[in-house]
Amino acid sequence: MPRADDEVIPDLSLEQKAALASGADFWSTKPVPGIRRITMNDGPHGMRVVGDIGLKSRKEATCFPPAVGLGSSWNPALQREVGEAIGREARGLGVDIVLGPGINIKRSPLCGRNFEYVSEDPLVAGAFGQALVEGIQSQGVGASVKHFAANNQETDRMHVSAEVDERTLREIYFPAFERVVKNAAPATVMCSYNRINGVYASQNEWLLTRVLRDDWGFDGVVVSDWGAVVDRVEAVKAGLDLKMPTATGDERVIAAAQSGELPEFVLDRVVSRLQKLADRADASRLGPVEIDFDAQHEVALRAALEGPVLLKNENGALPLPETGSTRIAVIGEFARTPRYQGSGSSQVPATRVDSALDALTGILGPRVRFAPGFTFEGDTDADAGLVREARALATESDWTVLFLGLPDSYESEGFDRDTIALPDNQLALLEAVSAVTRRVIVVLSNGGLVETESWEFRARAILEGWLLGQAGGTALAQLLVGRANPSGKLTESIPVKLEDTSAYINFPGCEGQVVYGERIYVGYRYYDTRGLPVSYPFGHGLSYTEFEYSGLSLAVTDAGASVTFTVRNVGAAAGAEVAQIYRGDRHSRADRPVHELVGFRKVFLEPGESETVTVELDSRAFAYWSIARHGWIVDEGLFTIQVGASSRDVRLAGDVRIPASGPALRLTAFSSIAEWFADPVGSQILQGAIAQLPDAHTFQLDPATNEGKMFAAIPLGHLLTMVPSAPPGAAQQLVAAYDAALAASREG
Amino acid sequence: MPRADDEVIPDLSLEQKAALASGADFWSTKPVPGIRRITMNDGPHGMRVVGDIGLKSRKEATCFPPAVGLGSSWNPALQREVGEAIGREARGLGVDIVLGPGINIKRSPLCGRNFEYVSEDPLVAGAFGQALVEGIQSQGVGASVKHFAANNQETDRMHVSAEVDERTLREIYFPAFERVVKNAAPATVMCSYNRINGVYASQNEWLLTRVLRDDWGFDGVVVSDWGAVVDRVEAVKAGLDLKMPTATGDERVIAAAQSGELPEFVLDRVVSRLQKLADRADASRLGPVEIDFDAQHEVALRAALEGPVLLKNENGALPLPETGSTRIAVIGEFARTPRYQGSGSSQVPATRVDSALDALTGILGPRVRFAPGFTFEGDTDADAGLVREARALATESDWTVLFLGLPDSYESEGFDRDTIALPDNQLALLEAVSAVTRRVIVVLSNGGLVETESWEFRARAILEGWLLGQAGGTALAQLLVGRANPSGKLTESIPVKLEDTSAYINFPGCEGQVVYGERIYVGYRYYDTRGLPVSYPFGHGLSYTEFEYSGLSLAVTDAGASVTFTVRNVGAAAGAEVAQIYRGDRHSRADRPVHELVGFRKVFLEPGESETVTVELDSRAFAYWSIARHGWIVDEGLFTIQVGASSRDVRLAGDVRIPASGPALRLTAFSSIAEWFADPVGSQILQGAIAQLPDAHTFQLDPATNEGKMFAAIPLGHLLTMVPSAPPGAAQQLVAAYDAALAASREG
Repeated sequence: MPRADDEVIPDLSLEQKAALASGADFWSTKPVPGIRRITMNDGPHGMRVVGDIGLKSRKEATCFPPAVGLGSSWNPALQREVGEAIGREARGLGVDIVLGPGINIKRSPLCGRNFEYVSEDPLVAGAFGQALVEGIQSQGVGASVKHFAANNQETDRMHVSAEVDERTLREIYFPAFERVVKNAAPATVMCSYNRINGVYASQNEWLLTRVLRDDWGFDGVVVSDWGAVVDRVEAVKAGLDLKMPTATGDERVIAAAQSGELPEFVLDRVVSRLQKLADRADASRLGPVEIDFDAQHEVALRAALEGPVLLKNENGALPLPETGSTRIAVIGEFARTPRYQGSGSSQVPATRVDSALDALTGILGPRVRFAPGFTFEGDTDADAGLVREARALATESDWTVLFLGLPDSYESEGFDRDTIALPDNQLALLEAVSAVTRRVIVVLSNGGLVETESWEFRARAILEGWLLGQAGGTALAQLLVGRANPSGKLTESIPVKLEDTSAYINFPGCEGQVVYGERIYVGYRYYDTRGLPVSYPFGHGLSYTEFEYSGLSLAVTDAGASVTFTVRNVGAAAGAEVAQIYRGDRHSRADRPVHELVGFRKVFLEPGESETVTVELDSRAFAYWSIARHGWIVDEGLFTIQVGASSRDVRLAGDVRIPASGPALRLTAFSSIAEWFADPVGSQILQGAIAQLPDAHTFQLDPATNEGKMFAAIPLGHLLTMVPSAPPGAAQQLVAAYDAALAASREG
Repeated sequence: MPRADDEVIPDLSLEQKAALASGADFWSTKPVPGIRRITMNDGPHGMRVVGDIGLKSRKEATCFPPAVGLGSSWNPALQREVGEAIGREARGLGVDIVLGPGINIKRSPLCGRNFEYVSEDPLVAGAFGQALVEGIQSQGVGASVKHFAANNQETDRMHVSAEVDERTLREIYFPAFERVVKNAAPATVMCSYNRINGVYASQNEWLLTRVLRDDWGFDGVVVSDWGAVVDRVEAVKAGLDLKMPTATGDERVIAAAQSGELPEFVLDRVVSRLQKLADRADASRLGPVEIDFDAQHEVALRAALEGPVLLKNENGALPLPETGSTRIAVIGEFARTPRYQGSGSSQVPATRVDSALDALTGILGPRVRFAPGFTFEGDTDADAGLVREARALATESDWTVLFLGLPDSYESEGFDRDTIALPDNQLALLEAVSAVTRRVIVVLSNGGLVETESWEFRARAILEGWLLGQAGGTALAQLLVGRANPSGKLTESIPVKLEDTSAYINFPGCEGQVVYGERIYVGYRYYDTRGLPVSYPFGHGLSYTEFEYSGLSLAVTDAGASVTFTVRNVGAAAGAEVAQIYRGDRHSRADRPVHELVGFRKVFLEPGESETVTVELDSRAFAYWSIARHGWIVDEGLFTIQVGASSRDVRLAGDVRIPASGPALRLTAFSSIAEWFADPVGSQILQGAIAQLPDAHTFQLDPATNEGKMFAAIPLGHLLTMVPSAPPGAAQQLVAAYDAALAASREG
């Protein structure tokens, strides 16, 4: 536990210390002598400053693209810029701490809050989390990285226990947090609502102290998600500093401190951390700021331009011709009434909202005609009149751009979806329209992914626009006409059907428990390992130009390996490519996904231009979390490095031999006879011991026979329980002799 | 704990008691005054009486079909008969306890010991386990049902921890044991090697005492698997009575008893149980017996006739014409050198072995010609000479019967497979032969399943013969020529590919741990719930005749439901059909497989004959194990009942409304606001409390909105931590008021 000896702790009463450990109200701490009030507000993609428990915001702010949209840019620098813009608005609004980023892993596409999260992959999620924290905190205010940890569903989110093994936590659900903590030093970490293996995150000492502080070196404040604290005393003991919101339970903390149940130094630790927080996260620290909302909107637009993913573009259907007389039917209510963010605590009262219809009309003029096609209500039955109108318009047009997606009621913080299908009325509209024209382009607006397998054949092109914030309409229009070139890539695989998702049989659990049975096999790690078809793979995204990969070169470095390759724009349009690096491992002692993303780089290239990229991989890129050795292990051997345009579009590949690292493997009484004989030191010791046994013949079975294999697999200790001539404690003595021999050889 | 007050416990010294708790040697206990030596031997499909740790048997015995072959008969009465025959031989050999049946669930087809197990389904496994125990014990000797529990792999079997939630244990891995214990009172239960959630089965008090004795009423002896005891004292405390083999560690037990670490009454319990065992499991109890090995062989033959599963039979390729001049090529070493049982502790030194080649020649005469086609060694490269010879023979014949399968080295106790493919040299032979003739019939001999998807199109018929014991060759011949009609059905699904199996990403684990991440979704429960294609579904098996299902009638009974239907033989041959009953459940509070087997009945019908079958389902057929209520729960509602010829060949279906049973659901502080308002009693109490809160408006959100849904999902207790006006302990008070109101209404 970090001691506070070197700090000047305000001289506070027990009551004041306890008061500091919980909120004053919904959005601020209680001021105590020496520590001012600290204010905090949602959220991750724009400021939501509200009055009370209600979610309706009072003050307008810029709505930047939610994580689902911005993450698809695979451009952390862009996320950093957005972070700076959010931080500016926080300063302007007097908010000390911005409650974001949200970097939980998209374990299932059904999670109602996936729009607030970045990816199914921890590397991508961590890179964006780090960038957002850096951006926000560059403005003198603090960030709150959330929700730590294993908060991957909304169903029963305040009580459900995520039953998940440590390796899965360390490899999938922790690394994004670890990266943000280590690289960006967030002012606060927000613990999640749920339990992990039976213990509330808010009361989980292993999580909040051993892992977060001891392993990763976090020195900020741990704040609870709003309402996540069940037992105030247990929470403080576990390492939770600030219970939000409101002050309920302070009397429990005081009583526990008085009775000695809660050592007072634990409360002093809280005081010290809150005091530091008040210094470092301060909306007024860098002086006053004027917000230029037009400039902020421009940032939102730039961010929105890189998010959409061109899933499909048959025969170059897109971009639409900007000049000429082509008649464009714009169909779908989403074109007129954009869905640009999700429901819940992250909802920002936008300063303005661009619609794609307005933006397209602005570019193309009266050649654009509109029909709503459907309404957001009554979403199961198609409105015959609206469909008729849409079909007539499509018939009279050269191209039909159909804006489909998920209405607001389909997904939200607070509940999960039970389908990944588009609403029936929209699918009916698509069918009706595609019956009169083959020149259909679908533009999607949705926070969680939607399946495309059942209808994609009806569309010549599909632009997955996700949720893009308040400038999304303009961004979509610019991409559709080719004023901008799509450069987004999928941060989550689009499965053929819901039943194919790896958590399908284990989501969202029942009776207060959800088993993370797929373990580390989340997203493409699952589909690619199992060889399951997907509609669009992780990392996929087309462009109006083409890229060529060449010249892979791999070099072992002190830290790990260095991967160098060249990407060339071989098409006619300027554009950007997200080159992805995957690592495969078939030799390690642990089971592993067929490959895992270990690096990526987005390169912007003019036609004909090329760039040689070098990505440095550290040893973690090759390591797995060993439950036996309790650490990150690299088993020496040949690892495969793949470079490509998606997890299923590998363009370059090579092997690299990485040396072992991490705690060494030691023989124990549980090591098998085969393992003992395979170890030079162990073999010598075991042979010596066997020579003294009258029933030594037991150990002489031909290892090529089934009987011999069966025998060789028996752990030494177990075997000796069946050998009457072996003295009691024989296994322990052999292990001690082995340990001593190893120690001697290290000294010698 | 059952007290031994009513028994006369021999007056033994502490040393004698400790001695009784471990073996004398590999196959017997130590005699003490008042309790004779008890002998025990493998195994489940025939007697293996051996001398020492080695696996080579000294005395010949009848080798009946291993569980994989006999289980496929879906005929427990036949298994009972085989049990009687095994019991007779045990008596004849002076063996008091037969170490079988093995009824672990086939979690993955890779498990090297699957040939010793019955099914992927616990109902089938339990029915066969019960029948075998009943049969064996009818002869005055005892059985040992094994390996309890969660021993579903050979890899690291002595140390690996099966990480598996209680519901999965209760619904999948326990029920077969539960059924055997409750219905057949086995003399002993053998605990498994592995750990369960970190605790060795041999030292697992929850497993060996709470579940086995307290919940199920087991009153026999728990014996360790050979070498499964790591800590003698912990094992005795947990409820393990007899550590096998050999006497290592007795001094630890004595010391622990002397120091008080091990209460002496625990050792008295062991004495009492061993004493009872000596009485009830006694090879001499029913007097001497003469074994007629010819008659025993006839039993083995009858058993073998019902095991093979006719997977495919295009255009009635089978049966082969018994008369006429059709030339039959018999190809494949398995025809001449049968593989009829698996490797390891269950291996029986057969009194004789029938080969299919001899049997076919005996029936068809010189029309049968043979070529080996391949050898069991050098299994990767085809032997060009043997292939050439086989192809020539096939060319000259009218039909080719190809005997393929897994050589002995491919599967065994002691290690798992890493593929489900047939050996390459056999596949090459099949390809070569099928290039010269389309009239190919494949007969398979294998303990674990093999994939058929890659080659089944080359065969007109496939007869999956599994391992059939010493009379298997004759049985296969009789089935091939139609002297007998195949009536076996699959007790395990044959997947399209290994990657489709539900444990694929979680088998066999690593570093001492295997996560049962698929939980209850094992076998068809997984494939059918996920809608994955399989090559041949669970319960599948063709016949030389056809069956028609009709007249489904469902009735609710006091116990559960009664299912009545009629099966008619509408073909020309006498035959048997295994009618299967599945239960579906879409309404319960727990996630469930799309359907689960709840009953089956094998009916033998002459052509034109029909039988009306009634199967009684008890409430367990509808119940799930509730982790929240710690018991078997039926949630009232409509359950679907399907009757059919396989899990994917449902012929009849209907719904039946079953009333609730099991512990009632109670509101708690963790119940959501929505749940409180939905409960008549809870709603009244909560409304009253809200009326007194100044911030009562908090509770008034429109439940149709996203915000309202989010709010309604908050647990009461959590919500009150955010309501400053709620007095401390408010949630507990509301729960107490609710409990009191319920109690009052029950009294009133």
